[in-house]
Amino acid sequence: MNETGEYEKRESETVIDSAAAKAHPEIAETVAKIKALRQSIDNVDTAIVSLLAERFKYTSQVGVLKARAGFAPADYKREDYQIARLHRIAVEAGLDPDIAEMYREFVVTEAKKRHQRIADAGGDPGVLDVFA
Amino acid sequence: MNETGEYEKRESETVIDSAAAKAHPEIAETVAKIKALRQSIDNVDTAIVSLLAERFKYTSQVGVLKARAGFAPADYKREDYQIARLHRIAVEAGLDPDIAEMYREFVVTEAKKRHQRIADAGGDPGVLDVFA
Repeated sequence: MNETGEYEKRESETVIDSAAAKAHPEIAETVAKIKALRQSIDNVDTAIVSLLAERFKYTSQVGVLKARAGFAPADYKREDYQIARLHRIAVEAGLDPDIAEMYREFVVTEAKKRHQRIADAGGDPGVLDVFA
Repeated sequence: MNETGEYEKRESETVIDSAAAKAHPEIAETVAKIKALRQSIDNVDTAIVSLLAERFKYTSQVGVLKARAGFAPADYKREDYQIARLHRIAVEAGLDPDIAEMYREFVVTEAKKRHQRIADAGGDPGVLDVFA
């Protein structure tokens, strides 16, 4: 299938010239649909990155409170609660719960690393505040 | 510091009885603050998991379009665009851009795996639709 290579190249550039669009209207249509979906994906990513910014501000505050009170960064009961909760929310939202669990592991692992750094600095968020 | 163990246990249970609260009002206050922050964190997670559900619905549609048109699951130009875009959004939002990049890698890797499965199934999202 020689043409596939051509299509693939064209698609990976996310542009299609008008001559190619006339020659292969079905490909032009597919590319247009992908472009529209990608804009929605980008919008979702903007929202998620903004929410992650808020999440890490909250967990940074938790890290400071824990460090100053001498609490440990990890909290397994809290994690069990989060696992069960996010599983339920994922299923309700139509998301593979494995994805929700991977998301949770990612943010909790990163938050714990930062909590540990705050604890090591004696409750001073310090350099973390560059992004807080 | 013997008391730390006690505080830690108490905090990890995210409960504090009224007698302990009276004996250590500063600990009770810290626990209350952490509880409030955790509720905000849970709210953020609900929003993000809901958005992830939408994101995977969009990327599943992209996967079907790509598979039917014979496009490759990976698209490195698109990835370069996303990396630069999310870096910028993260910095603007006050998020460590490394976190945004880890998020992007996570969702793109999972989306690509699903695209490949859709391509292998001849453009049929099949089992993926269980969560679509």
